[in-house]
Amino acid sequence: MSKFWSKVVHNLTPYIPGEQPKLNNLIKLNTNENPYGPSPKVLAAINQSTDDTLRLYPDPSSEALKKTIADYFKVNTHNIFLGNGSDEVLAIAFQALLKHNSPILFPDITYSFYPVYCKLYEIDFKVLPLNDLFEIELDDYLMPNGGVIFPNPNAPTGVSLTLDQIETFLKKNSDSVVIVDEAYVDFGTESVVCLTEKYNNLLVTHSFSKSRSLAGLRLGYAIGHKDLIEALVRVKDSFNSYPIDRLGLIAGVESFKDDLYFKSTCKKVIDTKIKFTEDLKSLGFSVLPSGANFVFAKHISIDGKIIVSHLREHGIVVRRFDNPERISPYVRFTIGSNEEIDTLLKTLKLILSV
Amino acid sequence: MSKFWSKVVHNLTPYIPGEQPKLNNLIKLNTNENPYGPSPKVLAAINQSTDDTLRLYPDPSSEALKKTIADYFKVNTHNIFLGNGSDEVLAIAFQALLKHNSPILFPDITYSFYPVYCKLYEIDFKVLPLNDLFEIELDDYLMPNGGVIFPNPNAPTGVSLTLDQIETFLKKNSDSVVIVDEAYVDFGTESVVCLTEKYNNLLVTHSFSKSRSLAGLRLGYAIGHKDLIEALVRVKDSFNSYPIDRLGLIAGVESFKDDLYFKSTCKKVIDTKIKFTEDLKSLGFSVLPSGANFVFAKHISIDGKIIVSHLREHGIVVRRFDNPERISPYVRFTIGSNEEIDTLLKTLKLILSV
Repeated sequence: MSKFWSKVVHNLTPYIPGEQPKLNNLIKLNTNENPYGPSPKVLAAINQSTDDTLRLYPDPSSEALKKTIADYFKVNTHNIFLGNGSDEVLAIAFQALLKHNSPILFPDITYSFYPVYCKLYEIDFKVLPLNDLFEIELDDYLMPNGGVIFPNPNAPTGVSLTLDQIETFLKKNSDSVVIVDEAYVDFGTESVVCLTEKYNNLLVTHSFSKSRSLAGLRLGYAIGHKDLIEALVRVKDSFNSYPIDRLGLIAGVESFKDDLYFKSTCKKVIDTKIKFTEDLKSLGFSVLPSGANFVFAKHISIDGKIIVSHLREHGIVVRRFDNPERISPYVRFTIGSNEEIDTLLKTLKLILSV
Repeated sequence: MSKFWSKVVHNLTPYIPGEQPKLNNLIKLNTNENPYGPSPKVLAAINQSTDDTLRLYPDPSSEALKKTIADYFKVNTHNIFLGNGSDEVLAIAFQALLKHNSPILFPDITYSFYPVYCKLYEIDFKVLPLNDLFEIELDDYLMPNGGVIFPNPNAPTGVSLTLDQIETFLKKNSDSVVIVDEAYVDFGTESVVCLTEKYNNLLVTHSFSKSRSLAGLRLGYAIGHKDLIEALVRVKDSFNSYPIDRLGLIAGVESFKDDLYFKSTCKKVIDTKIKFTEDLKSLGFSVLPSGANFVFAKHISIDGKIIVSHLREHGIVVRRFDNPERISPYVRFTIGSNEEIDTLLKTLKLILSV
């Protein structure tokens, strides 16, 4: 506390990201990174661009990357907004699009950064409970609101809504912005990017940190109607002219160019997830259906807290959440490589004495 | 304009950065980049880190780089805040430290991003005129205020205050935060980092984009009392957990390690500036004394607008400002390499028919 702080600072309770352990040789399955590295073509392009031109500012509007993404999704560059990770894109979207007279709505169990953004920008919000199957019930959101945001698939549950469910909701909720946070969409969930042309209040956010294996470079983007994008650009240009650096720009473009690599690594993760889910079930876990690159699972008899601490002793880092109470018995396992998941399963068997 | 925009968006007038021309073969002396590339050791370290680990998030608190900077300036890591370019550091400082009941104060001629941040965060401000020599008169700032910010050297004038002048002011202004934006300090201005231990209301911001030749990678930092830094960290952790990417972190550390390279390139720029200033004077320019890597100069008879457009026709890009009126006849020349400055001088002679 200090008299020098702006008023808003006193009330902040910052988001706490998953641990980035400093030890080597840990099996790290706690922050939903991709087990496979970026495309070799991405690495080659970064190496090729690591030269004296780093003395120069990047293109402030990142046109080349916007164009690449726009072409991929068959939209225009004015439908694309780029940020320093999808967390920055989301933060700017909260500030630019979600501050109105009515509270915004999001699920009670969801990405825990949402209420943090609300505190930062002094946005009123209301949380709506997931149903007993941990699904988002969009009918519950049909009330006057300043905006709606949810991840699809949801985090940390991994449970997805279908495109039809989201479109049905969009038809009924046309007076406020709906943000669908698709950070994990590429691992088996239907994207609603194709609806952005039809619904001028729909903004979809994507990340390079999961399916594109570039968490280390910080890239994310939003797709939506040009008026929504303009609001984001206005805030960005009032905050930081150059959020995307030269190497990130190059890496992003190459990542989209090597679509074969992207699709094959996503498929490998999905295949591992399907097998791992069955194996977890055979060990006595109930596992929520996951459209993401992680699974959320609860053991029939052993509490999540105990499992997490035993795994840590064996050099495996996974994640769980104390709040809300309803999810505290669960463990979130990021899908690693087949070798990592084999080791995880062997260790779980040991811990559970199966 | 859109009903979906948050109220604040409607009133924003974003900052417009200097042009990043898409054409090659231009001599680019408009955005104060360093003519010399980053240290070869920085480039080697980036290349060495460009591997599969890019799939992993960076350290969210950037400890290694904080430690490097703290050791360099003989302070603690809790005195250092890192951001995605010093523009982001400044934005977060405006939000975290400068929103109070009284207006904040800054010069009428200064970095034009300051009023933009004020609009974004709805901070009341008052501008105070430079004196006839384009100097900041700190005695004018002795009034109740919500904070004071100025660059030293100032931009776009290049004119510096001394450490003594700033300390005299700090003694009299102890009830609000004073931010000294030292983006250009390494080119011949006294830094006040050494005063941060003594004055708990002083925050100093630095950039990697000028003296450290890394505009392309987006790194900046602030140094100050741990309570001021804590406010910045709270906002950062409520906005974006990982603003600094893995390659930026590595590059930043290496840049500080290669102090010899850093100092020798700064000296080359300063030497070029001294000679260029004399040459400009002999061509009929009045040149403000510059503690930066640019000079601000007005020709005795030819208007700045005409000079800028003629230089552009000859493939040389420099910058000028329409507002305020008082600086509209001036041209801002970034100090380039000796070869670039030679070409610039030859072209100026041609244009001025000297």
